[in-house]
Amino acid sequence: MPSNQVPHLQTALKGPLLNLERHLLECRTEIESWFRKQFVATPAPFYASVDLRNAGYKLAPVDTNLFPAGFNNLHPDLRSLAVHAAQTAVTQACPITDGVLIIPENHTRNTFYLENVFALQTILETAGYEVHIGSLLEDLDAPMDIELPSGNKLTLKPLIRKDDKVGVTGFFPCAVLLNNDLSGGRPKILENLDQTLLPPMELGWANRYKNQHFKHYANVTKVFAELIDIDPWLITPTSVACGPINFKERTGLEELADAVNTMLQDTQNYYDTHDISCKPFVIVKSDSGTYGMAIMSVNTPEDILNLNRKQRNKMASVKEGLHVEQMLVQEGVYTFETLEEAVAEPVVYMMGSHVIGGFYRVHTGKTATDNLNSPGMHFEPLSFEDACVVPDDSLSPDAAPNRFYAYGVIARLALLAAARELAEAKGQA
Amino acid sequence: MPSNQVPHLQTALKGPLLNLERHLLECRTEIESWFRKQFVATPAPFYASVDLRNAGYKLAPVDTNLFPAGFNNLHPDLRSLAVHAAQTAVTQACPITDGVLIIPENHTRNTFYLENVFALQTILETAGYEVHIGSLLEDLDAPMDIELPSGNKLTLKPLIRKDDKVGVTGFFPCAVLLNNDLSGGRPKILENLDQTLLPPMELGWANRYKNQHFKHYANVTKVFAELIDIDPWLITPTSVACGPINFKERTGLEELADAVNTMLQDTQNYYDTHDISCKPFVIVKSDSGTYGMAIMSVNTPEDILNLNRKQRNKMASVKEGLHVEQMLVQEGVYTFETLEEAVAEPVVYMMGSHVIGGFYRVHTGKTATDNLNSPGMHFEPLSFEDACVVPDDSLSPDAAPNRFYAYGVIARLALLAAARELAEAKGQA
Repeated sequence: MPSNQVPHLQTALKGPLLNLERHLLECRTEIESWFRKQFVATPAPFYASVDLRNAGYKLAPVDTNLFPAGFNNLHPDLRSLAVHAAQTAVTQACPITDGVLIIPENHTRNTFYLENVFALQTILETAGYEVHIGSLLEDLDAPMDIELPSGNKLTLKPLIRKDDKVGVTGFFPCAVLLNNDLSGGRPKILENLDQTLLPPMELGWANRYKNQHFKHYANVTKVFAELIDIDPWLITPTSVACGPINFKERTGLEELADAVNTMLQDTQNYYDTHDISCKPFVIVKSDSGTYGMAIMSVNTPEDILNLNRKQRNKMASVKEGLHVEQMLVQEGVYTFETLEEAVAEPVVYMMGSHVIGGFYRVHTGKTATDNLNSPGMHFEPLSFEDACVVPDDSLSPDAAPNRFYAYGVIARLALLAAARELAEAKGQA
Repeated sequence: MPSNQVPHLQTALKGPLLNLERHLLECRTEIESWFRKQFVATPAPFYASVDLRNAGYKLAPVDTNLFPAGFNNLHPDLRSLAVHAAQTAVTQACPITDGVLIIPENHTRNTFYLENVFALQTILETAGYEVHIGSLLEDLDAPMDIELPSGNKLTLKPLIRKDDKVGVTGFFPCAVLLNNDLSGGRPKILENLDQTLLPPMELGWANRYKNQHFKHYANVTKVFAELIDIDPWLITPTSVACGPINFKERTGLEELADAVNTMLQDTQNYYDTHDISCKPFVIVKSDSGTYGMAIMSVNTPEDILNLNRKQRNKMASVKEGLHVEQMLVQEGVYTFETLEEAVAEPVVYMMGSHVIGGFYRVHTGKTATDNLNSPGMHFEPLSFEDACVVPDDSLSPDAAPNRFYAYGVIARLALLAAARELAEAKGQA
């Protein structure tokens, strides 16, 4: 049985499908029906990307990004999936709009990021919308053309406000797409708009906490695990919040070390009773913020207590100087996928409730316990399986290409957790 | 600029893009925005396939099938597009349904057709629906398993009626998908249902006339041609109805020959004023019904008057003995696409308003003026362009892969004509 609810993609792990993946495939129709109802009850955010780790015995999300970059890393073959999904998502948010304004991050030299904005603009234009980029850059007072390495040209225009609407000169559409995670706080120009902000500012890092996401995720997987009769641990990374912590001032470090210790012992207990011979580790990261900063992989509580000044300074600094107060202590999940002998972790992209593709974050200098979102990483787009070229696609359920289906399921469970965050935020707004 | 609103597919014609195709690509955003609004105003039928002919100077639909078979001929890489589109289309028709009942044609030995039903079932199951096949076969009183050449198994179940619903034992879903073109008339068991019949019976050949479709199509292309500033003739096959005609009794043949003559002369006039050096021809086919029967390609009015008994008998017989009364006289459009030296015509598949793929109908024994939907034809699925494997997809506008975009546009214009037929039929119902 093929499983093309999510695209039929090549994955790095080539061995036979593991029990969990096979079980997800077997329950396919039930799972899809369940997701459909869940996303009717709780609409998905406009877009998201989810970082996964596949340890074989456990497959879990470790980061859910609601302002995803990296659309340029998706395989071009998958572009029409993104275009279909974009039409559905924009129509759902603003049925009558003809245009979409994109508000990107304030990067002007990060060409990887700018290629992403260009890819996003192209997807929306191809879906039949007029698209302009309204930049929050403070010193921008005229349109700025940026030549991209791909040969394309991106034009950043100054974002202006007119009454209750933001836009660029002559263009104030109903739909405003945030591709800026608001780590620097909520820009005043975006407050109280009479436009549809996608996603709403409440989901920016100025308001969002990872531990809330993983609480929702644990609730989602509890129900889902019951539905398909699995142990929820197999798809859920144990996570607790810990803080306030000030790494520079060395306050709260004892409590953090205790939390790490508890997490390591709980994981060891689970490993022992389930014959898993790996060594537990714990990821400590800022409870808000992104960009792979303020994150570390620790093996003992002493790793926390013995941090040197440089390490503590690194943990204290996140993007745009957001102050670190609370940390997320999360069970480490090994990633046993490799691409050409380099450690790889799959990243899955969604628009609305649709999986539109993914790629591998690959790091040649890291190990299976490391955070791969760090300098030196590169990306490998996932392409359609060669096997698919055979017109008869009745591949056996345990064929490797079906592995990506499992990734799409776990990523959508994280998406559903984000949908609940969104519903909660809207309730508060 | 890539153009992945429709999938980026390989096409047979490898030369530079022709003026018309290039113009359609250039007007892409305008076109997509227009289609979006058109299909909001007039929802697309559940699915359709459109046969196209590409003469280079003219690109036009020649047949729009609202009960398409051939889903098994779509390239497996495109399956996820179909699954997304199916979710959207089913949700639009029946937001709360969990199941879909498919009512197929009464073929039990045509394994090509049955593979199509299996493909359709798989697409819908993958989209998260429970699917059963309810057969109209009169002598079927228990489920019948059919082993398919692909190795898959299709189960036909007897269709039963319970009050205002049809279904199979224990399964009476809200959504009933007709994959039966009703050439044999409207089955009584399907009348006055309290379920959503997709598409409604009014679009079956028992009620539908091709000349009505092409009238709507001409109205659609008139507006569209104005929008993008082209001559509507470039995308519209001139069509007139002619009848009643009885080939067996030889009545009405003079009028038919006159209509052919007028069409040939009009076409020749157009060719003369536009420096087209081809010889005009005309297609004469039954105004209702399908399956490539009762269709002929004629070069002179005498071809009609000099038909021998065998030819007249053939023209008088259509599928399931539907009585031929009216004929459609249609300007012949050359197809200059070839695959391995055989004449080919592209067939484009849509679900809802989304293009989900296509294939080539190829006939090694035919010429550029022949009807290719006849014994001896075979199918070549369209796959993704090799060029797309390059991560940077900034292909130049005149790259060959973009040709399929033009096909997707013309096919959707025919789909819009069908949507208007549907709206008209619903207004009458």
